[in-house]
Amino acid sequence: MSSSPLRADSTSCSYKKSKLIIVSMSESPQVLVQRPPTFDFMDELLSRNFPILTTHHTSSAPLLNSLSRQASSSIRVVVNMAMLKLDADLLSHLPSLQLLVCTSVGTEHIDLAECKRRGIAVTNAGEAFSEDVADCAVGLLISVLRKIPAADRYVRSGKWVKFGEFQLGIKLSGKRVGILGLGSIGSLIAKRLEPFGCIISYNSTSQKQSIPYQYYPDALGKKGVIINVGRGGLIDEKEMKEPGVPEELFGLDNVVLSPHAAMATPGSLKNIAQLTLANLKAFFSNQPLISPVRLD
Amino acid sequence: MSSSPLRADSTSCSYKKSKLIIVSMSESPQVLVQRPPTFDFMDELLSRNFPILTTHHTSSAPLLNSLSRQASSSIRVVVNMAMLKLDADLLSHLPSLQLLVCTSVGTEHIDLAECKRRGIAVTNAGEAFSEDVADCAVGLLISVLRKIPAADRYVRSGKWVKFGEFQLGIKLSGKRVGILGLGSIGSLIAKRLEPFGCIISYNSTSQKQSIPYQYYPDALGKKGVIINVGRGGLIDEKEMKEPGVPEELFGLDNVVLSPHAAMATPGSLKNIAQLTLANLKAFFSNQPLISPVRLD
Repeated sequence: MSSSPLRADSTSCSYKKSKLIIVSMSESPQVLVQRPPTFDFMDELLSRNFPILTTHHTSSAPLLNSLSRQASSSIRVVVNMAMLKLDADLLSHLPSLQLLVCTSVGTEHIDLAECKRRGIAVTNAGEAFSEDVADCAVGLLISVLRKIPAADRYVRSGKWVKFGEFQLGIKLSGKRVGILGLGSIGSLIAKRLEPFGCIISYNSTSQKQSIPYQYYPDALGKKGVIINVGRGGLIDEKEMKEPGVPEELFGLDNVVLSPHAAMATPGSLKNIAQLTLANLKAFFSNQPLISPVRLD
Repeated sequence: MSSSPLRADSTSCSYKKSKLIIVSMSESPQVLVQRPPTFDFMDELLSRNFPILTTHHTSSAPLLNSLSRQASSSIRVVVNMAMLKLDADLLSHLPSLQLLVCTSVGTEHIDLAECKRRGIAVTNAGEAFSEDVADCAVGLLISVLRKIPAADRYVRSGKWVKFGEFQLGIKLSGKRVGILGLGSIGSLIAKRLEPFGCIISYNSTSQKQSIPYQYYPDALGKKGVIINVGRGGLIDEKEMKEPGVPEELFGLDNVVLSPHAAMATPGSLKNIAQLTLANLKAFFSNQPLISPVRLD
């Protein structure tokens, strides 16, 4: 292992439990996986197919310390995980980069303009997380309306025995639900809410054809309950900067708080690992990428 | 009020806030509402249509103290709420009783054999709660699989900031779901889970025709997650006697605890109040009852 071109940053990183860094010295790795130390769930799958290097760096100086010049110049693909920042400066130290496989749906942490300028192709998570995120959105919606976490706290704290009946919840069936963004996730949420008798409307960059739901070109109304299964930044990022949560919310029973976990199931991890591998295989065999991001 | 035949039991009962007991002395009330002191949500609706008496007693001695003999002998209908016990002894003090309007779905707190023997008709909540209970069942299912209350505790306790990512949940979409009892509630649960791609099977007293789900004549399997939106007694009543909950469960993140609240929304309360009134109106105008219980 000491001959590997990857040197883990000793300040925060431990690879003890990881099974990766299977580096064949006869062939310089062409795939760099940029991931937090604990995000090792796809290392085994990927390294069974390609030699990989890993790094958790998001700026060039430590990256250069961890990779030899030879290693960094051989990298043709970066697999970017957990939305670690990847800017033009860092990209400049990967002169052979042709493909950036991003394991998130959002790409705002990537300098896409620089990728476009350099002709680096980009892929994202596509629909790998859509089912889990849609499931979670429905779960959060019912949880907040029917106060499921607050009710659970009520029972666990012994208040049910002490004070009797819990407060009433709010009925979901038949409610008006507005969905901001009717893409893969939004459509699955709509489909799931139909048998609840919910009246579904949506807002999107443009009105979609052959969609049975009412389209609203501007806002969907100011009252009611908000479920955010998009990224934290879609709300007011200053107010809701992950993982910092305003403490005022902690006392509220009509608020359900969740970590960034709407896609956090083994099923989604398996999906994204397989999609990543499929994109890599497509790239190395000159086939069309599976989940390309349009760079315009 | 002092002339009312109802005398509230001073040990536990306060009617201060209730708007009921609008008793026309020219006409002895024929409707007795048996309910806990706080369950006053349908008093106004009922008393606008019929003179009513209320009691919260479940055994004959205090009932006799609270009602005069004349009052109790005029009672033709009991509206029984919150599953307060109604046994043969108590029924024996209501010699003119012809109808028992029960606001729950279950009737195990009622001596149905005695009702049958005396020719007392019984109605139950029918489908008044079905949508809310089905919604709640889906919410609890997603909550337990995706650990929504545990995740909420994780964020509120500051652990997300301190320890980072929360544990993975379990995917719902595509899972096998078994439903015990495919009546009004079970069917609505099945319908709601279809767009999740769940493979639905059911157990019921008998196989149903024209149902697309697989029927299992005995058990639905021993592994997995149980969601109980039936009565506590359907699990092991000794282990789960409301509102007592075994404290061993309090430490478990894979358990979601709920008070008896699957139907607890204003929508359900409105439904049951209207159904109760409709049953009373049907009775007093010699029309067929709306939600009769078969006494055999």
